[in-house]
Amino acid sequence: MAVYTEVTDEALAAFLTRYDIGRMVAFRGIAEGVENSNYALRTTAGDFILTLYEKRVDPADLPWFLGLMEHLAAGGLSCPLPVRDRGGQNLNELAGRTAAITTFLPGVWPRRVLVSHCEPLGAALAQLHLAGASFAPRRPNALGPGAWHGLLQTSHARADEVQAGLGPELAGILDAITAAWPAGLPAGQIHADLFPDNVFFLEGEISGLIDFYFACTDIYAYDVAICLNAWCFERDFSFNITKSMALLRGYTAHRLLSGAEAAALPVLAQGAAMRFLLTRLYDWLHTPAGALVTRKDPLDYYRRLRFHLQATDATAYGL
Amino acid sequence: MAVYTEVTDEALAAFLTRYDIGRMVAFRGIAEGVENSNYALRTTAGDFILTLYEKRVDPADLPWFLGLMEHLAAGGLSCPLPVRDRGGQNLNELAGRTAAITTFLPGVWPRRVLVSHCEPLGAALAQLHLAGASFAPRRPNALGPGAWHGLLQTSHARADEVQAGLGPELAGILDAITAAWPAGLPAGQIHADLFPDNVFFLEGEISGLIDFYFACTDIYAYDVAICLNAWCFERDFSFNITKSMALLRGYTAHRLLSGAEAAALPVLAQGAAMRFLLTRLYDWLHTPAGALVTRKDPLDYYRRLRFHLQATDATAYGL
Repeated sequence: MAVYTEVTDEALAAFLTRYDIGRMVAFRGIAEGVENSNYALRTTAGDFILTLYEKRVDPADLPWFLGLMEHLAAGGLSCPLPVRDRGGQNLNELAGRTAAITTFLPGVWPRRVLVSHCEPLGAALAQLHLAGASFAPRRPNALGPGAWHGLLQTSHARADEVQAGLGPELAGILDAITAAWPAGLPAGQIHADLFPDNVFFLEGEISGLIDFYFACTDIYAYDVAICLNAWCFERDFSFNITKSMALLRGYTAHRLLSGAEAAALPVLAQGAAMRFLLTRLYDWLHTPAGALVTRKDPLDYYRRLRFHLQATDATAYGL
Repeated sequence: MAVYTEVTDEALAAFLTRYDIGRMVAFRGIAEGVENSNYALRTTAGDFILTLYEKRVDPADLPWFLGLMEHLAAGGLSCPLPVRDRGGQNLNELAGRTAAITTFLPGVWPRRVLVSHCEPLGAALAQLHLAGASFAPRRPNALGPGAWHGLLQTSHARADEVQAGLGPELAGILDAITAAWPAGLPAGQIHADLFPDNVFFLEGEISGLIDFYFACTDIYAYDVAICLNAWCFERDFSFNITKSMALLRGYTAHRLLSGAEAAALPVLAQGAAMRFLLTRLYDWLHTPAGALVTRKDPLDYYRRLRFHLQATDATAYGL
């Protein structure tokens, strides 16, 4: 549900004069995405998405995100291509926010993940990693392992409101994860948030990947581990190894996982579950009542974490 | 912010097989409208809006609403045209809701109303009244004067939470309005909710009227009075008579107002302000904290009502 910033039709018309994309035909707020305000924009030149970046996105990071998207699109990945204005800028100001226009991607994100989605998803993730390898600028992962202790600290005192004993339990698990965190694994540009609502499908094929605003430079296999969390659990939080095998088959068809990467999958998957658990826990405890954002239950990721904690090696994921 | 019901891609694909509108290309929730769930749907045949009717709409009224839209579109009004399935039905079930597909209208609704919007708005309202005159089925106005005492009753005890003394004050005003309510004025199909977010403009011209789910059979001039409330006040609640004159000029260019209609404008405008005040008051007092709908301040309409109460005749509106 994401239109946080209202754009007047006059401000939009003035904004569009900067770009060479024709005249406005239609403009509707999109009820998807939780971080930014997104509008479907149609002009006489075609369809676009207008994004106004809201407070969670650091404006200093935007040139990196948009540069990565341009690089990935040039490398053949189907992702939103930022549109440059007549002066060559892909970022401008609108309604007091930094804003960008990107191309519109067809497709529908899967509300219910099927096994048949998982192999193309794995393939697209590998293609993203390969296409991003030649993008030199680096962006540290602001929500990587180094941030988790601090994140837990902000929720620790009130974590009992969610589940008795949760704070101390997570602190113990977190210590074990960070102690076991692998060093030296292949790294590069990762999406870091490739959930089903960021992946469009059209007639069984992937038609686009979106929402690169958590992308960063980190371990490739960690991105795989995020997808194992996001795509391979059922609604009852049981792990579906058929989905996991399909995902890994799709991935390794394009980029092989080394022995070290495979061996690290359990701890990487634990870390990925911990990362989403911690941000959801923070949001759960800090979102004011009446806010327009639906809070997501942090325990969804506690349950995933419990699965990964009992995984002793990559065979748990069907590798 | 309106996507209350999630539609799975599989359910949507199955639903679309009923219709002869090609294959799905894109599907995005729309963050507009507060009563129903709306999705922008693109197929190989073009663009459509998919609406899932939520609890505030009585399913028994839907055939009337869709019949009116078909009739108005056939009469040349630019409004959503319900798409019939292969069996001739324009209503079907999807995700546990009654659902309809309608055509997509271009344009942008004015976030800030300018004088230049008001004459075309008035003209479109008159065209709606003229085109609807040949639509025979009647639908009583469920939110007309007969409902207002009951509505106030549901909020009366807690109206003080909004403004001290508000309940008794409104009861007194309401008695005066209903006592003075005109009988025998020309009546027919009215929109009854033609606010700026229901009117699309494209390059200064009206490109479409939407959201007919409050439409009903009532006094035409009452629809004009609703528009005076919705279009002619500034953000500081001052009345802009230049806008009102433009609106009435646009309306009367297509449908003259009789002397009796003109004379009734003040009480009709009072009634219109009362109607939105009462439903907003109800929503304000009954919307649970944390709901996804933004509550609108009922006092916005108290302030409009105060203006209309000092209007002695139609000259207050520039007529």
